[in-house]
Amino acid sequence: MNTKQKPHIVIIGAGFAGLETARGLAKSSVRITLIDKNNHHLFQPLLYQVAIAGLLPSQIAQPVRTIFRRQKNLAFQMGEVTGINFNEKFIKMNGSVIAYDYLVIAAGARTNFFGFDTLEKHGLQLKDLETAVATRNHLLSMFEQASHEGDPEKRKAMLTFVIVGGGPTGVETAGALAELITHVMRKDYPRLNLNEAQVILLEAGPHLIAPYPDELRQATLRLLKNKKVDVRLNTKMLNFNGQRVTLGDGSVIETQTLVWTAGAKAAEIIETLPAEKASMGRVRVNLTLNLPQFPEAFVIGDAAFLTNGNGQPLPMLSTVAIQQGQAAAKNIKLMIEGKRPVKFHYKDPGLLATVGRNAAVARIFGISFSGFIAWVIWVFLHIYRIIGFRNRLIVMFNWAWDYLFYDNQVRLITRE
Amino acid sequence: MNTKQKPHIVIIGAGFAGLETARGLAKSSVRITLIDKNNHHLFQPLLYQVAIAGLLPSQIAQPVRTIFRRQKNLAFQMGEVTGINFNEKFIKMNGSVIAYDYLVIAAGARTNFFGFDTLEKHGLQLKDLETAVATRNHLLSMFEQASHEGDPEKRKAMLTFVIVGGGPTGVETAGALAELITHVMRKDYPRLNLNEAQVILLEAGPHLIAPYPDELRQATLRLLKNKKVDVRLNTKMLNFNGQRVTLGDGSVIETQTLVWTAGAKAAEIIETLPAEKASMGRVRVNLTLNLPQFPEAFVIGDAAFLTNGNGQPLPMLSTVAIQQGQAAAKNIKLMIEGKRPVKFHYKDPGLLATVGRNAAVARIFGISFSGFIAWVIWVFLHIYRIIGFRNRLIVMFNWAWDYLFYDNQVRLITRE
Repeated sequence: MNTKQKPHIVIIGAGFAGLETARGLAKSSVRITLIDKNNHHLFQPLLYQVAIAGLLPSQIAQPVRTIFRRQKNLAFQMGEVTGINFNEKFIKMNGSVIAYDYLVIAAGARTNFFGFDTLEKHGLQLKDLETAVATRNHLLSMFEQASHEGDPEKRKAMLTFVIVGGGPTGVETAGALAELITHVMRKDYPRLNLNEAQVILLEAGPHLIAPYPDELRQATLRLLKNKKVDVRLNTKMLNFNGQRVTLGDGSVIETQTLVWTAGAKAAEIIETLPAEKASMGRVRVNLTLNLPQFPEAFVIGDAAFLTNGNGQPLPMLSTVAIQQGQAAAKNIKLMIEGKRPVKFHYKDPGLLATVGRNAAVARIFGISFSGFIAWVIWVFLHIYRIIGFRNRLIVMFNWAWDYLFYDNQVRLITRE
Repeated sequence: MNTKQKPHIVIIGAGFAGLETARGLAKSSVRITLIDKNNHHLFQPLLYQVAIAGLLPSQIAQPVRTIFRRQKNLAFQMGEVTGINFNEKFIKMNGSVIAYDYLVIAAGARTNFFGFDTLEKHGLQLKDLETAVATRNHLLSMFEQASHEGDPEKRKAMLTFVIVGGGPTGVETAGALAELITHVMRKDYPRLNLNEAQVILLEAGPHLIAPYPDELRQATLRLLKNKKVDVRLNTKMLNFNGQRVTLGDGSVIETQTLVWTAGAKAAEIIETLPAEKASMGRVRVNLTLNLPQFPEAFVIGDAAFLTNGNGQPLPMLSTVAIQQGQAAAKNIKLMIEGKRPVKFHYKDPGLLATVGRNAAVARIFGISFSGFIAWVIWVFLHIYRIIGFRNRLIVMFNWAWDYLFYDNQVRLITRE
């Protein structure tokens, strides 16, 4: 085989964007090296379910090697990329150097604490399997501690759960946690007065899920209130020291739990790149998704900054990442053929967020609706999107079981 | 309710022995406090399956509170017991003191490295969920590292897996790991020559599964050799420094992986007890399972030392623990009624160990057999014994899937 002639495409990151690029090149006469620091792809939209003990880590993760078993032009390497040389076209990883003809940087995002040191130290996050499992362990431990706490003030603080951020992740986490308390914990802790427990959702702006039509924002608020979530809009968080949250108006909430869902920024490797950055450390790319100075280098997904027709930056969402991955693969194929890459246009497929059992909000084909039907669509669409037929079956089984028996799967506290 | 009059029974440990004691007292007019440092009961006989990526932690663990939801005379407390005062009849935990009328110490066992410091530092173990997951992460990482190692010597060392101990755990782990390599890893790593990989099982004595009839020992040896496991009998391990294993005859095996299954000793809390100890730090108990000086204190399961009719110490097995738990519950009920406790007699239910796909050895009702039938019995008996109907269904589904598609469930490398 004359593999030396085939262009070598290096893809950094096996998230939605990287995966889609690799798939888009499956039938091309190229060599692909896909790199990730984990050995698995993670279905991030369901990460909050791991935190509330609804799903297991392995049910929303799939080994990259398994995904690409049949794609013979792809090799996977697990490891951390430590440097990129755009001029000489190579990357550094695992102590060696890998040369590329085309590079796709799809390294994703990490939590943005906006410089709050105490928040970074004490706050919980939902960014990868490890942080989600740590959040689960913390939440469940609070109930255990409360169960043998005699002081009513301390017990109330242990059973107070603050979630910051009124975006889809914050909304979904708050709704699911409220249901866990009402339906499951009440049975596990019959001696504990769980009327003392409360879930508080803080949002600095005037709306939940701000980018969406007002009827959906209102529906979300109403559905969360039905679940007894204490939603506080226009409420800034000033500090969290592990024992109490201080709000913008100077008032405090006594709690040991703060889940931070209010910010993201581009991955660490992006910081060091000699490329122009926009807000959240994202790399400014051409409309063709590559770098102005190095057209063979693409940046896509959460790490890339691009605006839509209205001048709004494209959100850090899986739908954007998937479409950009497809576009990058297409442009690489065009460039290999000596043609010009084409501009990327984002097609917004709508919104779908669950607020708990039988409750979700949706905007599909321009129609907004909420309630049971939206929830059924959410359930089936998410099962369909999970990678791996086995995972789909198991998640379906689990959700059916939880739905019928009000019983969350894994309430395991594991040691860190 | 006049609960003050009811005898208070404190059970330390929610393993097989503690669980069975608590269940045996379900219909008694007593108050039970069950304590464990974890919030879950662990089905230890399948722990090696977590290590070889065959099952998920939560599938062999069940929250204690869920198990005892319907047993109203029982309260669970998660925490570590830090002291026991037999004279004044109280225990210390979570910074407070709990008085008891009867105490059942079922604290189990931990890995015994027999003072090998380097082994404790570098060796892998299968004692709880954390060590099993750490073993899984290490095993899978070796394949990832080997996949980009250019030096053939180093690569061979990465793909050499040493398991020490020819008991059921060592035999089951070696067989399952050999199958993982042959059936699954070969597909995940098409570029890696897995003929270089080898599983070596070291046993210091002349036999595998020593306490059993010779025909079963021979069958075990033969089945493992069929799976290409390199079984070395009469082979002592002298040292393991993380890079190589030194054997008794001075020869070395270059490897980064050693799974230690060759020793257990009583749990830490047992060390400090003012009670007579036997081998492995186990507490010498009366034939009625309680302490000679403190008859209201029982020690059962792995932590207890008792001999059978032939003067042989009872093994650290779940079958012994379960029978002792039942016996302790019975004796406590007798003593509450003012009667004398009765002697414990162990009924050996036989042996059942799997050596891999379609292969197991069994001794049931005095009949020894091996092969496919033994394996089918093993599969169904283990599914039956797992706690929780949901876990049973999911384990059954997983094993059927693995069997049909040669595909192990979770080959996730998680960060520690």
